[in-house]
Amino acid sequence: MKLIRFGEAGQEKPGVQIAGVNYDVSSFISQYDEDFFANDGLAKLQTYIEENKSDLTEIAAGVRLGAPFSRPSKIVCIGLNYKDHAEETGAALPAEPIIFIKSTTALVGPNDHVMIPKNSTKTDWEVEFGIVIGKRATYVEESEALDYVAGYVLHNDVSEREFQIERGGTWDKGKGCDTFAPMGPVLTTPDEIPDIHNVKLWLKVNGKIYQNGNTSNLIFSVPFIVSYVSQFMTLLPGDVISTGTPAGVGLGFNPPIYLQEGDIIELGAEYLGEQRQEVLAYKK
Amino acid sequence: MKLIRFGEAGQEKPGVQIAGVNYDVSSFISQYDEDFFANDGLAKLQTYIEENKSDLTEIAAGVRLGAPFSRPSKIVCIGLNYKDHAEETGAALPAEPIIFIKSTTALVGPNDHVMIPKNSTKTDWEVEFGIVIGKRATYVEESEALDYVAGYVLHNDVSEREFQIERGGTWDKGKGCDTFAPMGPVLTTPDEIPDIHNVKLWLKVNGKIYQNGNTSNLIFSVPFIVSYVSQFMTLLPGDVISTGTPAGVGLGFNPPIYLQEGDIIELGAEYLGEQRQEVLAYKK
Repeated sequence: MKLIRFGEAGQEKPGVQIAGVNYDVSSFISQYDEDFFANDGLAKLQTYIEENKSDLTEIAAGVRLGAPFSRPSKIVCIGLNYKDHAEETGAALPAEPIIFIKSTTALVGPNDHVMIPKNSTKTDWEVEFGIVIGKRATYVEESEALDYVAGYVLHNDVSEREFQIERGGTWDKGKGCDTFAPMGPVLTTPDEIPDIHNVKLWLKVNGKIYQNGNTSNLIFSVPFIVSYVSQFMTLLPGDVISTGTPAGVGLGFNPPIYLQEGDIIELGAEYLGEQRQEVLAYKK
Repeated sequence: MKLIRFGEAGQEKPGVQIAGVNYDVSSFISQYDEDFFANDGLAKLQTYIEENKSDLTEIAAGVRLGAPFSRPSKIVCIGLNYKDHAEETGAALPAEPIIFIKSTTALVGPNDHVMIPKNSTKTDWEVEFGIVIGKRATYVEESEALDYVAGYVLHNDVSEREFQIERGGTWDKGKGCDTFAPMGPVLTTPDEIPDIHNVKLWLKVNGKIYQNGNTSNLIFSVPFIVSYVSQFMTLLPGDVISTGTPAGVGLGFNPPIYLQEGDIIELGAEYLGEQRQEVLAYKK
């Protein structure tokens, strides 16, 4: 299954995407939120769709898509999880996963504007393969970790490098700015991805390809990450873990390349769909 | 006003504390959550109490108290914000606030158990003065920042020092473990605190006083912090900013002193009440 949400920001309703067409399921499901995932919502939705497919209402073309789930309790991100990206930033390969937390107020739809914060000169892009948690996870074993996954989502882990690195704090300061977490268009359930460790993902700015990676190059695998994070905090249904970005971010160039007002970011991943963001700027 | 929540974990109902007595207001208010704060809930509650004070139902003694608000969208913490604490940890005084984010799954009631995580040997305490946001705050000026505050709350910013400092990531790894954010017993509204920059706060372990501070020693003031954080992320009604801890944490001793199973932590702050936690341990 591929879950979507559609409608104005803050008023999104749940839908599903079947063979590239979006359908409304809001008469059956109120939200894709913690309760939905915790209460076997995916299985119930699957049954509903099988029984009602011919009666589903198609969503009109052009309707805005939101992130494919409600605001989660947290967005946990893994830093430097691709060897080539660690090298381009000049960082040593991590001995264990780097964890940071992204403010959930950064969450927006896949095609919403990305806003350059006030006083920012170093806003950067990061295409990522995101994990959506399906059930409460505390001290989960790696061998069982995939049982705790509801699906996967495309994420642009937008980052302000000065705020992140040069402003005397943890990375969180440059990761959670408003609009810094476009997610979607779809949440894809695991059965639709033949091998989660062989998924191509890419990102372009103004038509030029900058990132061209594959989850086969993840340093720490998806089940390892889920297990690892669950040693430090309980993951709730609907929570997101973003698994890190491959090489090709703006920070890695010499001189670095950062986003400017008017830029167009396009990104995508196999099985997870594509995003397109126009970059705007808060006025100083 | 002093807001409380009472009842079993996950099932808490709203109440108020008047002259040290707790009353049920759940027939008027469903939750102290984002909607409550955003929709002028405090003013409506004040009016309700004035009109119905004699009819309020007292809460039986011994009923558990939860954190005095629902799970917020985020708990932002300020690091090293007391000069004496920065010195005891060997860190330089920060030029600007250090921000990190605490997983909201760490939130518990003021007298719940604190659980030492599996594989932890360095679980530590931190008494803190917490700010609860009252309305959506983005790029707020310092001069107007206090208009965005709903009230204040006592917080034990429990921290695992090895996870925080020695495990190759941001501080978030050692700050968001389950039970690491006891908050309450009360959310105290600003009108009840004569000077938020002159509030004594203290913490004892097994009856011995370790922390004995005053918000007069904050490096960065409450309005500065609210304004500062709002430059990097939007604060939502009900969000918490914890302002840092004074000297006297376990990490600051030579050799360091860390929490052990069976320890009793007691802490308090003027106007904000007191907490008491028994320390238990997850089995390895």
